[in-house]
Amino acid sequence: MLPSDYSGQDCSLARALEQLGERWSLLIVRDCLYGVCRYNDFLTHLRIPRAVLSARLHTLCAHGVLERHRYQRQPDRYEYLLTAKGRALWPALHALARWGDTHGEADGPARIFEHASCQARLDTDLRCTRCGRVVDITETRTRRSPGRQPADDEDEVTRALAGPRMLLTPLRHPS
Amino acid sequence: MLPSDYSGQDCSLARALEQLGERWSLLIVRDCLYGVCRYNDFLTHLRIPRAVLSARLHTLCAHGVLERHRYQRQPDRYEYLLTAKGRALWPALHALARWGDTHGEADGPARIFEHASCQARLDTDLRCTRCGRVVDITETRTRRSPGRQPADDEDEVTRALAGPRMLLTPLRHPS
Repeated sequence: MLPSDYSGQDCSLARALEQLGERWSLLIVRDCLYGVCRYNDFLTHLRIPRAVLSARLHTLCAHGVLERHRYQRQPDRYEYLLTAKGRALWPALHALARWGDTHGEADGPARIFEHASCQARLDTDLRCTRCGRVVDITETRTRRSPGRQPADDEDEVTRALAGPRMLLTPLRHPS
Repeated sequence: MLPSDYSGQDCSLARALEQLGERWSLLIVRDCLYGVCRYNDFLTHLRIPRAVLSARLHTLCAHGVLERHRYQRQPDRYEYLLTAKGRALWPALHALARWGDTHGEADGPARIFEHASCQARLDTDLRCTRCGRVVDITETRTRRSPGRQPADDEDEVTRALAGPRMLLTPLRHPS
């Protein structure tokens, strides 16, 4: 989606889609929520062309959804971390994913989300099904759904994200 | 976004975006939540080419998000109404729009949402700020934000949607 296309729409949703509506942008934000932060890991996990990935990362940084940090010199290498603005997308992405669970064509959720301290599932409103509190993203743990079989050609990023692991924990495996 | 592009992603969010990720699709669903249901009204309100609108309505019907009903014969005319599956998108679209309110470039929300019987605003979790209950979409009223000025070239659909009006109430003004 071209951002400028929605300029005639005086609407909060259009303002959100201007920043996030391009192909793959929301799946990049999803990966960041799971902890993916390095260029090659996005590439491995999303299987998209480098040009598309670079353009989307650039746009998300320009909108202040992601921040780029150098983690190595000579050669310079960067990682991409969510800003507070980016982390604030979690409830919306969670709601959209739960809709996909119920109304998509796949068989049930691919992963589950839990309140780490209670070891209990979250409901659709991000409330812990044990303690009843709305669980902050920093207290949320994710794992592959029990019984979900890994694909035969599973990549190393998918394997690392199978968890259980806390959201937002940067994935910094040796590569 | 081409639906098939996400087929490698075992992910509930990808399943949702396969059905909704094409340009304008989510804004069409938004219009339906507000009550827009007739072809010419979408055209007036969204200002998109007929070919794009027709293709998106077709796709949303094919995915069972919308249903087409004939409301006139000779010539046949149809309206597009949300299915239960489509109405279930309300929490996700509300969350995304609230993110746009806070993090978009416009100045505050373009419209507000209220629990009709309490005449009180909803919070970001769709809870009534007076009675504290999670408010169903059928009990939700919307209106243009107080103080928001209509554009000089405001179209008749935008004017009709300025409200206050209940969500999902079909807009069937004489045209």
